[in-house]
Amino acid sequence: MTIDQQEYKHVGTSAPRLEGREKVTGQARFTNDIPVPGKLLYARLVTSPYAHARIKAIDTGAALAWPGVVRVITAQDLPILPDEKASRLRNPLAREEVLFAGQPVVVVLGQSEAAATDGAALVEVTYEPLPVASTTGAALAPGAPLVRNPQELGGGGGHGAAVQSGPRNLPPNVSNRTSLKQGDIARGFEEAEVIVEDVFHLPMVYQGYLEPMACTVVPEVSGHLTVYASTQTMFDTRREVAQALGLKVSQVKVVLPFIGGGFGAKAVLLEPLCAALAVMTGSPVHLSFSRMEDLAAGNPMPDCTIELKLGAKNDGVLTALKASVIFNTGAYPGSPLEWVVPHLSKVYPVPNFEVEGIEVVTHRVGGGSYRAPGLPQVTFAFESLMDQLARQVNVDPLTLRRRNILPDNRSGNAVLDQVENSSLWKNRLNSRESSHEGWGLAFSGSANAIGPASANCRLNEDGTFSVITGLADISGSSTGLAMIAAEVLSTKLDNITLTTGDSDSVPYTGATGGSRATFTLGAAVQRAARDALDQILVIAADFLEANPADLELRDGVVRVKGATVKSVSLEQISALTGGYDGQYEPVLGRGKTANTHSVVGCYTHLAHVRVDPETGEVAILDYLAVHDAGFAINPAEVEGQIHGGATQGLGWGLYEQMVYDKEGALVSGSLMDYALQTAPMVPSFQSVIVGIPGGQGPMGAKGVGEPPIVPPAAAIANAIFDAVGVRVTELPATPERVFHLIKESKTGL
Amino acid sequence: MTIDQQEYKHVGTSAPRLEGREKVTGQARFTNDIPVPGKLLYARLVTSPYAHARIKAIDTGAALAWPGVVRVITAQDLPILPDEKASRLRNPLAREEVLFAGQPVVVVLGQSEAAATDGAALVEVTYEPLPVASTTGAALAPGAPLVRNPQELGGGGGHGAAVQSGPRNLPPNVSNRTSLKQGDIARGFEEAEVIVEDVFHLPMVYQGYLEPMACTVVPEVSGHLTVYASTQTMFDTRREVAQALGLKVSQVKVVLPFIGGGFGAKAVLLEPLCAALAVMTGSPVHLSFSRMEDLAAGNPMPDCTIELKLGAKNDGVLTALKASVIFNTGAYPGSPLEWVVPHLSKVYPVPNFEVEGIEVVTHRVGGGSYRAPGLPQVTFAFESLMDQLARQVNVDPLTLRRRNILPDNRSGNAVLDQVENSSLWKNRLNSRESSHEGWGLAFSGSANAIGPASANCRLNEDGTFSVITGLADISGSSTGLAMIAAEVLSTKLDNITLTTGDSDSVPYTGATGGSRATFTLGAAVQRAARDALDQILVIAADFLEANPADLELRDGVVRVKGATVKSVSLEQISALTGGYDGQYEPVLGRGKTANTHSVVGCYTHLAHVRVDPETGEVAILDYLAVHDAGFAINPAEVEGQIHGGATQGLGWGLYEQMVYDKEGALVSGSLMDYALQTAPMVPSFQSVIVGIPGGQGPMGAKGVGEPPIVPPAAAIANAIFDAVGVRVTELPATPERVFHLIKESKTGL
Repeated sequence: MTIDQQEYKHVGTSAPRLEGREKVTGQARFTNDIPVPGKLLYARLVTSPYAHARIKAIDTGAALAWPGVVRVITAQDLPILPDEKASRLRNPLAREEVLFAGQPVVVVLGQSEAAATDGAALVEVTYEPLPVASTTGAALAPGAPLVRNPQELGGGGGHGAAVQSGPRNLPPNVSNRTSLKQGDIARGFEEAEVIVEDVFHLPMVYQGYLEPMACTVVPEVSGHLTVYASTQTMFDTRREVAQALGLKVSQVKVVLPFIGGGFGAKAVLLEPLCAALAVMTGSPVHLSFSRMEDLAAGNPMPDCTIELKLGAKNDGVLTALKASVIFNTGAYPGSPLEWVVPHLSKVYPVPNFEVEGIEVVTHRVGGGSYRAPGLPQVTFAFESLMDQLARQVNVDPLTLRRRNILPDNRSGNAVLDQVENSSLWKNRLNSRESSHEGWGLAFSGSANAIGPASANCRLNEDGTFSVITGLADISGSSTGLAMIAAEVLSTKLDNITLTTGDSDSVPYTGATGGSRATFTLGAAVQRAARDALDQILVIAADFLEANPADLELRDGVVRVKGATVKSVSLEQISALTGGYDGQYEPVLGRGKTANTHSVVGCYTHLAHVRVDPETGEVAILDYLAVHDAGFAINPAEVEGQIHGGATQGLGWGLYEQMVYDKEGALVSGSLMDYALQTAPMVPSFQSVIVGIPGGQGPMGAKGVGEPPIVPPAAAIANAIFDAVGVRVTELPATPERVFHLIKESKTGL
Repeated sequence: MTIDQQEYKHVGTSAPRLEGREKVTGQARFTNDIPVPGKLLYARLVTSPYAHARIKAIDTGAALAWPGVVRVITAQDLPILPDEKASRLRNPLAREEVLFAGQPVVVVLGQSEAAATDGAALVEVTYEPLPVASTTGAALAPGAPLVRNPQELGGGGGHGAAVQSGPRNLPPNVSNRTSLKQGDIARGFEEAEVIVEDVFHLPMVYQGYLEPMACTVVPEVSGHLTVYASTQTMFDTRREVAQALGLKVSQVKVVLPFIGGGFGAKAVLLEPLCAALAVMTGSPVHLSFSRMEDLAAGNPMPDCTIELKLGAKNDGVLTALKASVIFNTGAYPGSPLEWVVPHLSKVYPVPNFEVEGIEVVTHRVGGGSYRAPGLPQVTFAFESLMDQLARQVNVDPLTLRRRNILPDNRSGNAVLDQVENSSLWKNRLNSRESSHEGWGLAFSGSANAIGPASANCRLNEDGTFSVITGLADISGSSTGLAMIAAEVLSTKLDNITLTTGDSDSVPYTGATGGSRATFTLGAAVQRAARDALDQILVIAADFLEANPADLELRDGVVRVKGATVKSVSLEQISALTGGYDGQYEPVLGRGKTANTHSVVGCYTHLAHVRVDPETGEVAILDYLAVHDAGFAINPAEVEGQIHGGATQGLGWGLYEQMVYDKEGALVSGSLMDYALQTAPMVPSFQSVIVGIPGGQGPMGAKGVGEPPIVPPAAAIANAIFDAVGVRVTELPATPERVFHLIKESKTGL
């Protein structure tokens, strides 16, 4: 359902995904399907079973003797330049010390995948196990082993920190510490008439994309490298590979095949290693993770502990907020710490707050990004406590949110209006079929990422247009971009081709992440199309001896407005701008943007569950998701994002966790063990798209890629409380955990 | 040697070719080397031994039964749309009637090249031979067989005719007729005190590129096609393939691998057929000519007969010119008729002229373009007669040219100056070692082609730049384009990457032809680089709080002119325009041009030969080529063009001819029979580059790709006359031909 959309011809009306057919027929070519020239070598990794160990010896003899094994490579062999932070990218193989279970130690290159796999099994690595600190508790305990050399921990990770970090004088195994304050926190709590507080814990989770990390690197004769990568970021991949190998960025060409999902995880990881192998051998090399490697050594979201305390007046209006967030970032900084700290202070305008964040390094893999990094965590905590607060001040949870958001928060009020008007909300009190049903609501709002973007829009000989960008399309954004161009150029969507070229050719396009693809690149495409249109009108004006301002382009023909006689078709204009006798410059629209201000879209989810007190099992009966998309360029796609994100959020809430044993080894190391949902486990979503346009995005669009994952865990936890009166503070809310909570509770169900 | 170059840092100084290493190490990937996804099918052609025949039956049974043969395809099977002109592109296989010997009739698709070749040998085609007209004489004779249906002969070929053609009421087998007049031709000859006239004949010649015609087409799941082609024209190939198959142009992506020469021949030929085969089978298909197929069924230059008559005063100044040019264009219009007619009237400003041109269709392959199409032919005729005239009016041949060009022809006078000052010219009269040595001079001037072009210039993260075009680089133009960008951006050539992207991604780039790559695209690159520079200065000005006009970019750093303190590097500017927090729009320079006026560059060649009267063999002792390049962006490359073009021109003059028998079958059908020169047959050239800047090209550059092929045949013929007193009017001047001329002459050598 779409509400509040303006009148447009193309944008605002659902269109099927341009690349849908290739994907659903299984014929789309992903990185592993790309043919390469010459003899492709296959790389297989030998990984550490230990979370912390010294490498005593590596015996490669048996592997090297195996038929089809071309080379066995250890860290010492790699022509990768070191960096100050001893980052994962520059240290893709453990050198002397293993820092997490699953860490690659040796790579075997084979003429076939089988030969490489056999060879990898024959490599003998002798380890001396060392004390392990794989939890924040263990890492912060006195006498804990030092996970990383403090000098290597520059702090802050690679997230383009917006918040000033604290002084760098950090305790052992702390890689970042940051805080934010406002008002007088003590007075805020003094003024409070109600105080709620709790400690929340969320486990490490895996992004569960369909295609594990993969890349292929082809060394070119010129010394250039062509990198085929399953990545969300063409230009960052190019830069990282080039810098790791001491090349110019223009010596590296990144090509993006179809990408089988990313969800924030797929920045740069395997590419520098794969590129180094290609340089070393002079052969094309393919390196991809198996699913188990991807789970153990990918880029999962760190686990997180949040202590939260809220003070409020008797009407529920917040007076004080105190929070402490700890991320277990694994062996490498990169947790979303710097984002969650300000976020906590912004959802509701609390006059007095004090938020602290700590990033701890441990003997685990880490620390990656996952759709709205950090926001599902803090929202789970915050919205659980808000639910608790609503009960204590005896207002309904929706009214509590209303009272705490600013009256001029149009976005927040609009999504709350939609929930309030929904039959699910209205019927919640009189439709309770059994005593173990419950309704849970969670609210939040978030801003999409920003940044520069650029695009070209070219007129083709047959009057069609090509829109050219370097977009890594992980969610169907291409279709929306094409719709924007079709709208500006008053032409059918069929007449727009959206091309993701390679990094040698395309206008600069930033990473697909932070819900910004449409917001930033869409704006660039809009400008590029507008620029193309302007060029067309100027040419047509000269050709028709008219004033550009008097002309309009409609259905492939430029006409004098109101007149029917004088016209020139786009085919004609193309002919006038090409060949050997074209008299006009080619139509090459260019769009460049630097969206410098992010824009907030609010959202509210309402879950209706039934809890089986005998088993602790939670069944989702109804699920409503209301999102402010600013303006839904392609409503079907926005709905798709809501379904996908909410599904993942429910996975966080009910099923998913990466379980490690005491020695730091991953127990849930395969998809037999890691509980990704299957289709029957996903409810039928009701989604409502609200459009409160704003900001620098195209047609007022806001980012919708990340938000849908944010509220589900909180909504579910609140619904569980509503159903059975127990407060889930640790995710996922597995039947076992809910069962025990019920058992321990005094509610006597 | 370079003369008259301005002071620049990069352009004007020889630089090695960017792609040189790949080519000389044999590692450059040409169309045949491109890996494709899926199972590649190989196409082999069954061609007609007859020049004219009716196809009675085609028996494909044995071929189809052969192991590895996938499909046997005839004209009826092809999903290619017809066109009014029944063009070669739309009729790649003969349907009912064969029109030239070597014409493809059947195509066999095999799982391997061997299977396809074996299968092709098993196809049995039954022909009924029909009367052949393979010469202009035979085709114009009363009762000649009608080669083509007159309705199909729209006339004018595909050359973008600049001249108005005559009325379309054409005699049988005439596909085009055009004429140009000025003044009063009768009075011109009345005023003449000397008249010279002769008939000249030049045979059909083959362009002799290293790589025969080749293409590979990959059908994409989306219904799109990816075409890898050895072509000089990315966008025309895209359009022709799309139109032939009824696709949108944006459904066809053309990728240009390295191109092994073109010399005008490689426009579009095999691509629609190969694309049709890929569509029919759903598999990637590779189709390339063998060398013999390329000779018999490629795109050779038609043969040509020129009747020329000149009238002049006793001082040698021309008063009248009458010419008739006949091209034997083979079965398909496409001769350079429309270019040579005006050219004949323009080299010298003759007050009274009458030029007529006729294009005749015959049972031969044809008619293609070859480096300066038509100009070697008419220049051979014109400059031979000018030589004759010089002798009759008793002035030296250089002075005769001076007297006939306009005094304000700076280009012409400059090249004549250089010849006049050369030791070869000065010593010619007193260095005659034997009585059979001679010197021959030929002069001409020609204008390069024009047309729109566009390019992008992008700043990369490390301060390097990428220049992006769709250039088909057949002669090293890339290097010159990169030098232009380096000059504008004050950076090392190493910091410029020149990318030929695919047709989906690149700014519109016209065909490489007509000596216009540097002239048109170079101007676009210059603008794109300038635009990038302007964007950089604006960003730097904002960042440095300065005025853009006060800033300069030098060695990768923007500084306030004269100051040393305030500066920002290109790396910094790139960082400010990218990532998640860049505050400025990306630097994406765009250059668009529509060079509407061509510019003339003149040239003079001086040959010194020795003729052996016993054998008729001509040895080239010295060879001087002086060319006005306007401004030589990359002098080494200009010199390379002079060497290559002059070598080909000498091939026309002394060695090359496609010989057909009376039945219209090619006798010189392999490189054993067709006399392409080998290295020892090529003289050591003295080349002088003159720079008379002018026109819309970058830095005043003029096209130099075509001119060097134009004068050699005339210079050689004139030198032969000087040596042994016989006038060669039919090319090539083989020993046999020269021997007989000497024998028949009255000079009594």
